[in-house]
Amino acid sequence: MKIQIINGPNLNLLGVREKSIYGDTGFDTYLENLRELYPNIDIYYYQSNVEGEIINKLHEIGFSHDGVVLNAGAYTHTSIAIADAIAAINTPVVEVHISNVYKREEFRHSSMLAANCKGVIAGFGMDSYRLAIESFLID
Amino acid sequence: MKIQIINGPNLNLLGVREKSIYGDTGFDTYLENLRELYPNIDIYYYQSNVEGEIINKLHEIGFSHDGVVLNAGAYTHTSIAIADAIAAINTPVVEVHISNVYKREEFRHSSMLAANCKGVIAGFGMDSYRLAIESFLID
Amino acid sequence: MKIQIINGPNLNLLGVREKSIYGDTGFDTYLENLRELYPNIDIYYYQSNVEGEIINKLHEIGFSHDGVVLNAGAYTHTSIAIADAIAAINTPVVEVHISNVYKREEFRHSSMLAANCKGVIAGFGMDSYRLAIESFLID
Amino acid sequence: MKIQIINGPNLNLLGVREKSIYGDTGFDTYLENLRELYPNIDIYYYQSNVEGEIINKLHEIGFSHDGVVLNAGAYTHTSIAIADAIAAINTPVVEVHISNVYKREEFRHSSMLAANCKGVIAGFGMDSYRLAIESFLID
Amino acid sequence: MKIQIINGPNLNLLGVREKSIYGDTGFDTYLENLRELYPNIDIYYYQSNVEGEIINKLHEIGFSHDGVVLNAGAYTHTSIAIADAIAAINTPVVEVHISNVYKREEFRHSSMLAANCKGVIAGFGMDSYRLAIESFLID
Amino acid sequence: MKIQIINGPNLNLLGVREKSIYGDTGFDTYLENLRELYPNIDIYYYQSNVEGEIINKLHEIGFSHDGVVLNAGAYTHTSIAIADAIAAINTPVVEVHISNVYKREEFRHSSMLAANCKGVIAGFGMDSYRLAIESFLID
Amino acid sequence: MKIQIINGPNLNLLGVREKSIYGDTGFDTYLENLRELYPNIDIYYYQSNVEGEIINKLHEIGFSHDGVVLNAGAYTHTSIAIADAIAAINTPVVEVHISNVYKREEFRHSSMLAANCKGVIAGFGMDSYRLAIESFLID
Amino acid sequence: MKIQIINGPNLNLLGVREKSIYGDTGFDTYLENLRELYPNIDIYYYQSNVEGEIINKLHEIGFSHDGVVLNAGAYTHTSIAIADAIAAINTPVVEVHISNVYKREEFRHSSMLAANCKGVIAGFGMDSYRLAIESFLID
Amino acid sequence: MKIQIINGPNLNLLGVREKSIYGDTGFDTYLENLRELYPNIDIYYYQSNVEGEIINKLHEIGFSHDGVVLNAGAYTHTSIAIADAIAAINTPVVEVHISNVYKREEFRHSSMLAANCKGVIAGFGMDSYRLAIESFLID
Amino acid sequence: MKIQIINGPNLNLLGVREKSIYGDTGFDTYLENLRELYPNIDIYYYQSNVEGEIINKLHEIGFSHDGVVLNAGAYTHTSIAIADAIAAINTPVVEVHISNVYKREEFRHSSMLAANCKGVIAGFGMDSYRLAIESFLID
Amino acid sequence: MKIQIINGPNLNLLGVREKSIYGDTGFDTYLENLRELYPNIDIYYYQSNVEGEIINKLHEIGFSHDGVVLNAGAYTHTSIAIADAIAAINTPVVEVHISNVYKREEFRHSSMLAANCKGVIAGFGMDSYRLAIESFLID
Amino acid sequence: MKIQIINGPNLNLLGVREKSIYGDTGFDTYLENLRELYPNIDIYYYQSNVEGEIINKLHEIGFSHDGVVLNAGAYTHTSIAIADAIAAINTPVVEVHISNVYKREEFRHSSMLAANCKGVIAGFGMDSYRLAIESFLID
Repeated sequence: MKIQIINGPNLNLLGVREKSIYGDTGFDTYLENLRELYPNIDIYYYQSNVEGEIINKLHEIGFSHDGVVLNAGAYTHTSIAIADAIAAINTPVVEVHISNVYKREEFRHSSMLAANCKGVIAGFGMDSYRLAIESFLID
Repeated sequence: MKIQIINGPNLNLLGVREKSIYGDTGFDTYLENLRELYPNIDIYYYQSNVEGEIINKLHEIGFSHDGVVLNAGAYTHTSIAIADAIAAINTPVVEVHISNVYKREEFRHSSMLAANCKGVIAGFGMDSYRLAIESFLID
Repeated sequence: MKIQIINGPNLNLLGVREKSIYGDTGFDTYLENLRELYPNIDIYYYQSNVEGEIINKLHEIGFSHDGVVLNAGAYTHTSIAIADAIAAINTPVVEVHISNVYKREEFRHSSMLAANCKGVIAGFGMDSYRLAIESFLID
Repeated sequence: MKIQIINGPNLNLLGVREKSIYGDTGFDTYLENLRELYPNIDIYYYQSNVEGEIINKLHEIGFSHDGVVLNAGAYTHTSIAIADAIAAINTPVVEVHISNVYKREEFRHSSMLAANCKGVIAGFGMDSYRLAIESFLID
Repeated sequence: MKIQIINGPNLNLLGVREKSIYGDTGFDTYLENLRELYPNIDIYYYQSNVEGEIINKLHEIGFSHDGVVLNAGAYTHTSIAIADAIAAINTPVVEVHISNVYKREEFRHSSMLAANCKGVIAGFGMDSYRLAIESFLID
Repeated sequence: MKIQIINGPNLNLLGVREKSIYGDTGFDTYLENLRELYPNIDIYYYQSNVEGEIINKLHEIGFSHDGVVLNAGAYTHTSIAIADAIAAINTPVVEVHISNVYKREEFRHSSMLAANCKGVIAGFGMDSYRLAIESFLID
Repeated sequence: MKIQIINGPNLNLLGVREKSIYGDTGFDTYLENLRELYPNIDIYYYQSNVEGEIINKLHEIGFSHDGVVLNAGAYTHTSIAIADAIAAINTPVVEVHISNVYKREEFRHSSMLAANCKGVIAGFGMDSYRLAIESFLID
Repeated sequence: MKIQIINGPNLNLLGVREKSIYGDTGFDTYLENLRELYPNIDIYYYQSNVEGEIINKLHEIGFSHDGVVLNAGAYTHTSIAIADAIAAINTPVVEVHISNVYKREEFRHSSMLAANCKGVIAGFGMDSYRLAIESFLID
Repeated sequence: MKIQIINGPNLNLLGVREKSIYGDTGFDTYLENLRELYPNIDIYYYQSNVEGEIINKLHEIGFSHDGVVLNAGAYTHTSIAIADAIAAINTPVVEVHISNVYKREEFRHSSMLAANCKGVIAGFGMDSYRLAIESFLID
Repeated sequence: MKIQIINGPNLNLLGVREKSIYGDTGFDTYLENLRELYPNIDIYYYQSNVEGEIINKLHEIGFSHDGVVLNAGAYTHTSIAIADAIAAINTPVVEVHISNVYKREEFRHSSMLAANCKGVIAGFGMDSYRLAIESFLID
Repeated sequence: MKIQIINGPNLNLLGVREKSIYGDTGFDTYLENLRELYPNIDIYYYQSNVEGEIINKLHEIGFSHDGVVLNAGAYTHTSIAIADAIAAINTPVVEVHISNVYKREEFRHSSMLAANCKGVIAGFGMDSYRLAIESFLID
Repeated sequence: MKIQIINGPNLNLLGVREKSIYGDTGFDTYLENLRELYPNIDIYYYQSNVEGEIINKLHEIGFSHDGVVLNAGAYTHTSIAIADAIAAINTPVVEVHISNVYKREEFRHSSMLAANCKGVIAGFGMDSYRLAIESFLID
């Protein structure tokens, strides 16, 4: 089973910035844990701050992999282009958020992407990614 | 570990109504499966069509149980009173939805409850409940 | 033929309150007249001020009766949960209003229910109920 | 008893256009049926695609006839001028719609006319006209 | 000096309808008075309930007359087409209203036409027309 | 003099929940104080989390008591049905709030009920109830 | 006959500022002309940039004079307080504007005052004042 | 105990204007009554129609007095500047209204000031002031 | 091949009015050019300022011709009735505009018609009509 | 004559994704056809999913080429930056869309770019590009 | 060089009120520093809580001085009248704010004045004034 | 002291495009002047049209430099992602604009970035950058 995790803008700073919101674990450490927990799954990881590169990656793996775990960060709330990319590919996408976005600014309460995703998981810290992987296993 | 599942209005008709949206499994059958999957968890179940009775139940178990899995159905989008009840109790609440509400009518895209919950899980069919239970185990 | 009339909040005060809007006939008297006019129809009556109890009643009769005449009063304008109940049952529902709601406050001009009903009849005083019954006979 | 039916824009194509919404009976056929059903009522019929001509007709019969059954079609949602005409005449007007307009596009959910009409009947197919005539008889 | 008065929809009923708002003088009587008051002005009069006919009239006299006094009635608030006609002709147009439209329904507070007119005069009863004629004299 | 105090949803948790907003006195203790302060007034108390039961109580006492002190909690901001009940009864109702609702979330700034009440008192802690009782005495 | 002209903020700069909008005649010159044109009318003049002083003036003359010609300038669009003052006095007020405000910024299209005035005259340059005086004479 | 009453625009006309809304007692008479009722309190009174003078008064007494009873009239709904003044001083301010503002025009339903005040009392006629004074005594 | 060009309100003034926007060629001249360019196409032309007459024409030719080139002018932005007519006929309609409507007033940016048309062509001056004809040829 | 075609996000998947909307021809095949149809025009092609790279391309060719045919895909509806780029260059730009965007989601009905373009062509399938090229030839 | 600093409502309390937002330096002290820093500039200072007096001051110095540094406080967000004054005078005005208004309440994010000013400087504490003076020097 | 200037989309065309708005100095020339004026400051310069690359640059220098002068161009009004980047880094950022954005289109009046910046400087032409640098020196 091939699962691609994609992290959007500013998520390369996890563990560095705004620790009160995002915790102090870097994503690398967390990724190692995930791979140990799910030894039978090939977990691929990609991060970019560029909207169009996230689209490129979705196109690249969207006809071959079994699932995408997508934390599009701020692009979640503005990008019709990423939403179109999700609609264009075959691989199902689960939208995740580390923080409970509904507790934050109004503009983070709506998602351009959710309607094109399989489901949404938000608010469980780093474990939002793990629950998303579980969602592909249960299926 | 004590986990309370609360289902809101019309969810007593699961498996009966609108099968194209909600599938054809009744919640009773699904509940048995859940209890078998998690033999060490005491899973309590409550359903009501009355907004105030959902509040009563939250008050009743909200200072003793370890988690609430709440599918408030249509009240998700309108009830400040249930939101206040979630804020008033100690037990963390996870908001779940069977369908991907973001694919449906505009008025189902916003939640009055989410800001007071621990997190939100939507769109995974019946398995949204299971992922919510997982979220309490991982913690 | 079995027809269920359901009256929502404050309609138990018909003939008592706000006579300039609703007239001075109590619903009981009117109901007797209706039953005399339509001796071959079983006309059932239910009134509740509780949103969830109206949902309960819709569930109870919504798979066996031939028609529902629903005056949901103030819940017409706010209740997604009753709208969901109407969508979930098999019996067709006609939305009625005694007064011409479009002459009153702005918030009474929109209906959460109408899109899920067979039709809407408003403004004919008590006779809105009779026209709704006629609509089931004509069919 | 003199009752004037007025049909607005595009309703001359009934039975021709969009049969999935409006059915395949032309209005002429339906009108014959109505006249047979109510032999003691003089039922007059007028159709125009021109907003101002509908106003002219309302002025012409609005001080002599006993009732108007008005399906103003698309002008229902935009015409303050027809609304003013309804307010200016003495004959009571019942607004009717063949389809359940609340199930269709957002812009068909509001009516400029309803506040000046006696009542509204929508969603009963061609029988919306018949129920409107009944409403004048019951009175 | 040639001045064209144009009255829009329902203003043919002046003196007949809604006397509490518009008074009980028919426009014919008022027109005679105006002509006596201004014997040196050629005062032309036109009324139509049809939006497009008002446009036709504006085109017809809009390159030869000295002024237009336009009470477009309900079309004031909705007609971009009349506004375009006013912009397209050379004759200056003064928008008038008999009643103080700002005391009435919200939708009568805005004008699609005013920006293309020379000025606006509203609320002086029938004398709004006279003040408009004065405005062309003073000029 | 008979005065009915009605508390809406979650106010049964006063003194337990969110002490920073509502203080730490339970309503029972405060009620005793009130009764001591006003020995000549019969002060009745009712609390419910169910919207429809609050309506039932208003109907029950609304034609016999001298005043209602109503803290409808979250229903203040959403319930047209309670507003209708207040309009339907004879007893004057004073809307009260413990906290200054205007300092809190936007959705707590508007009241569906206030237009039908005699007056509004908000922000004086528990003493909002006492000031409401005073308002009936002064009258 | 006593008529009070009141000019609001910045109108003391007439003839000085923004000549393309307001022309280059100072108000003093124009006032002399007006007084010559209407020798039998006592025309009083007041200008202030202070909202509250305009209210004071309205109170002062609002129970003795025959008419007020009010150009409230920018306060037209924002001042509920001046609107209240107009409603509180007996003297009828005519709202005037030199420029056609409907051709300018969106925020100049609505008036807080108009609903409480007798009428509105806008767009005739300085002659808007003269037409307002005419409106009191015609009456 | 020093309490400052501040009345805003047009409230100098109490007892003179719009008696159906505000009653026919002048504020002077009422003030005498208040002073008799509370002989131990120094009750100061100030009225101005000028927004900035109300701010000046708040600054002047806002660091020495025990309470302010503020009826800012129309400025309640528009003045961020008065709101800032209330936030800037130490003396607690209670916002009062004579009429039930929620029964009146839409623009009177919101308050710029309330969030910075201790509380709000509206709708009790002149006695709104007395209840505000009581609120400082109870404290 | 039969193609019907329909021009809406004020387009009879092409070449006369607002030359800076629409150029100075009358439509007659342009029509001749078109017919020379496409000698094998029967190009019919109709212009009306009346909304309802445009609907009449669409009905008349909408079941026999091969294409409609429709410049509905100002009605583009307001007419649900013309939109309904386009949906009711069989002939495909292309919406055209001479000017780039998106560069002009906000209310010209949205089209009630476009969703029911085959396509939209705007901004190419008179050649918008020619491109529309090309679109039927390419097909 | 040099014409640059620029395709925005997800348009590299043409012929692969959502065939019911976009058809099953890849853009490469279509491009060949275009070049054969217009042998005397140098047709350049560029596609990118990155907003900023589309801006780079516009800068690069925007002072030398004769026309740009731009299908900016989802960026059409959100990108002020591309709109600024179009305004900054000399080469005229025609906005094209394959599908009739006005039949799709609300957020695809408005364009940030159109006001800065020469014109808009939408809804003609792949032939929208051809009509755009024609528009440069006709000129 | 003559530069006028104008401070609006509540800014006389600088150093006294809300020190967490505005710091604890009184404006007098700061003014002395400024005058020392810029010995060759005549720096005039004026503060008023009255909107109209700020307008008066702008008129007074607006045709003779070289620059105005204006912190209009709360009037920034509501005063069309001050905006008109800025447009009416010749002296360029720079809008300043001590705090970063974009971090505060929504209603402080928009400025009625900015479009008429030369520029805006916000968020640099007291040094916003100094930067504004620099902007006149650099010019 | 290390200061990074970052210019966003289309600002590479400064001195080339839209000279009436932005002047005709290229940024290179201006940069030289700046470096001469502040010989003791290391002024770094970066320009990109790609939103994500601006984020990359902010991450790269945001933990080492002393200040960022950011002109994000069109991204100012839409980019939550850049706003998040500003919040994530330690270096304070000053938002600058060359033109007075408040004089331009409505969509340029709001900033997604300002709330996360130290301050905003707009409207001083190229000197906006210099004033921003001054703001770091004064500090």
